[in-house]
Amino acid sequence: MSKTARQRIDVIPLLERGYVHVYTGDGKGKTTAALGLALRAVGSGLRVAIVAFMKSGEGGEFETLGQLNGLVHVAHFGTGCFIHSKPDSKELSIAQHGCKAIAQLMESRRFDLMILDEANMAVSCGLLTVDALQELIHSKPDQLELVITGRYAHPRIIEAADLVTEMVEIKHYYQHGVLARPGIDM
Amino acid sequence: MSKTARQRIDVIPLLERGYVHVYTGDGKGKTTAALGLALRAVGSGLRVAIVAFMKSGEGGEFETLGQLNGLVHVAHFGTGCFIHSKPDSKELSIAQHGCKAIAQLMESRRFDLMILDEANMAVSCGLLTVDALQELIHSKPDQLELVITGRYAHPRIIEAADLVTEMVEIKHYYQHGVLARPGIDM
Repeated sequence: MSKTARQRIDVIPLLERGYVHVYTGDGKGKTTAALGLALRAVGSGLRVAIVAFMKSGEGGEFETLGQLNGLVHVAHFGTGCFIHSKPDSKELSIAQHGCKAIAQLMESRRFDLMILDEANMAVSCGLLTVDALQELIHSKPDQLELVITGRYAHPRIIEAADLVTEMVEIKHYYQHGVLARPGIDM
Repeated sequence: MSKTARQRIDVIPLLERGYVHVYTGDGKGKTTAALGLALRAVGSGLRVAIVAFMKSGEGGEFETLGQLNGLVHVAHFGTGCFIHSKPDSKELSIAQHGCKAIAQLMESRRFDLMILDEANMAVSCGLLTVDALQELIHSKPDQLELVITGRYAHPRIIEAADLVTEMVEIKHYYQHGVLARPGIDM
């Protein structure tokens, strides 16, 4: 952690009240909307934590944020592999570690904005229980803005959120055989 | 412009082919999705231009990207004021300058990703004609990825795009009287 980030630990929260956002749906733009929000927040001096499920950190779409200054904390709790049927014990264990890490980051009160990337997908494919994700939402500090991304948001998560956007796919170039491209799609 | 950016001018395009994205709809996440895409692109070494309509640049949500390295060019062509009925001659003139600037940036072939923020709104409120925006899409270099944001995307722009996501507002805290907050909503 940089000196700047250390200096800001334990300062008073910068938001009066934090709300819960959910970005879900089948269209492109969920993770990028969270990334853009993180960038906007950092530009205003807010401290940001990003915890990514499913992804291993290779490719590192969040890492560029860390170059901006010491206000961004990034952690990955996934294997980077697609889960075809049921998650295996290693995948479950990694996701559970992610949950514990989130709880600890929340308790530290060091952040103004926290992004739980692909947490909806993690619930949908059995890596996390909806109870566990709901518990994280309920236990967040009042001044922490919480952003949850991923397809298939559970109705109880939508119910618990203050802001929900559904990214609806109207058209996608994947339908025409375009493969995912580094820097644009991943 | 930094030395890094200058060195990269006139290099061969980094994308084999560039597609056209549209992020529209009434939900939160359109500009942030474009911002996040810009961040992801910069992280992969792509060169990014952002041209914002409607906004004056005060508040500067795009400026943080410029701190990353010399790969991002940001320009604003708006007054920052809400247009209630018809745009006045000053507003029209600024938007027309924006169009010319975009054409010149495209011709320079210095960028891999270009974002036209709020261009759909600019068409919707009469700052730009749909013909002008469509002409920009048609005249873009083949290897330039083009991203157009804003509510009320015109059917002809949706038709011309390769990828369209509609951000649908399921819930928004504005409905409960929460005011726009710096770092989160603007």
